[in-house]
Amino acid sequence: MKEFTIIPVAKIKNGYKEKFGIPRQSGLAPQVKSEIIFEKDFRDENLIRDIEQYSHLWLIWGFTENNGEWSPTVRPPKLGGNKRVGVFATRSPYRPNSLGLSVVKLEEIRKSEDGRILVVSGADLLNGTPIFDIKPYLPYVDAIPEANGGFSEEFKNDILKVSIPDEIKNKLNSEDINEITSILELNPKPQYQSDEERIYGLSYKNFEIKFRCSEKEITVIEIE
Amino acid sequence: MKEFTIIPVAKIKNGYKEKFGIPRQSGLAPQVKSEIIFEKDFRDENLIRDIEQYSHLWLIWGFTENNGEWSPTVRPPKLGGNKRVGVFATRSPYRPNSLGLSVVKLEEIRKSEDGRILVVSGADLLNGTPIFDIKPYLPYVDAIPEANGGFSEEFKNDILKVSIPDEIKNKLNSEDINEITSILELNPKPQYQSDEERIYGLSYKNFEIKFRCSEKEITVIEIE
Repeated sequence: MKEFTIIPVAKIKNGYKEKFGIPRQSGLAPQVKSEIIFEKDFRDENLIRDIEQYSHLWLIWGFTENNGEWSPTVRPPKLGGNKRVGVFATRSPYRPNSLGLSVVKLEEIRKSEDGRILVVSGADLLNGTPIFDIKPYLPYVDAIPEANGGFSEEFKNDILKVSIPDEIKNKLNSEDINEITSILELNPKPQYQSDEERIYGLSYKNFEIKFRCSEKEITVIEIE
Repeated sequence: MKEFTIIPVAKIKNGYKEKFGIPRQSGLAPQVKSEIIFEKDFRDENLIRDIEQYSHLWLIWGFTENNGEWSPTVRPPKLGGNKRVGVFATRSPYRPNSLGLSVVKLEEIRKSEDGRILVVSGADLLNGTPIFDIKPYLPYVDAIPEANGGFSEEFKNDILKVSIPDEIKNKLNSEDINEITSILELNPKPQYQSDEERIYGLSYKNFEIKFRCSEKEITVIEIE
């Protein structure tokens, strides 16, 4: 079968140090900022000329955590991990070609020693993820609010209350508190886990966050 | 630089026999149907289990007409072919990695001797184009109607009147007339061409379509 070769044009830099805790889709944690840093061969400023006219961008990128493994059916975590659906009926990472697709909000274009970087929000990419393409989001073709979202629809408002004790909050700046809250409220723990006493650990930026999770609420125990 | 290898999981089959006349984005000619035919290694029905729960699908595919050529800036035809913008600020085919992104409507899943095929509408892919990934469209993350569409916004309703003389219509079935009309009304001719006497030729399905084009109207002269 004919093979095609693609190369990263950029990589993402953000606080998502591990897969656990990354929102399951883009846009769900809009408080979280990421930087798109172009690879050396793609730092010519002309490549992004006029990109600031667009508020949102598509990223086509590579899942790197799955080592290329995939299976014909997957068990979406949102369905409790029991029901199997076809891989092409999901956005699962465990798919042929390991390609990811995410829409992000373009916040700023910043000069840096690595050339111009795009500061975006809402990305659901692990730190260091290779990006193969960046395209403008065209609402007149890409926005189809009336589309039928299948089984994913039922879970879109699954937001938990997040409690962070004052003595922990006082050690953090407000941006970090906002980002951590927006990640935890999406309920990162596996759906099949229901032990309210269990302590989960999540790495974000340079923080190690420990928390418990009940049906409606996440309680932070420690952030180091 | 690290290279990644991707392989086609499917290819598209439709009436777009040449680049000229293909709508510039997906969804613009919703009357046009295409078939997604899976490659032999991806014909296991499990791969598309429950996909019918979604009304729309994303296709990530490969531009094959450009021979991998790209340039840092491109001149979008919609801007008259004069203004240069960065390749990442356009959906131009002439881009690094030659990846295309299109949303299509899932019309039907059909059994065939090539396994199950997905019948979709609104595709803007040339016949035979390799498809690398198929993902469900998730309106709660993918639909951002309020996104700012930059310079593409101004041109979204650029629809022409299409006149097909009765003696030509009488030789065609209504489906073909609808498809041909929906392609021509999008004004396939280059924006910088303004010669109203010029006759353009377009291949679609097994038809050779000849037409003239004024500022507001397309007049079909011959369909063979």
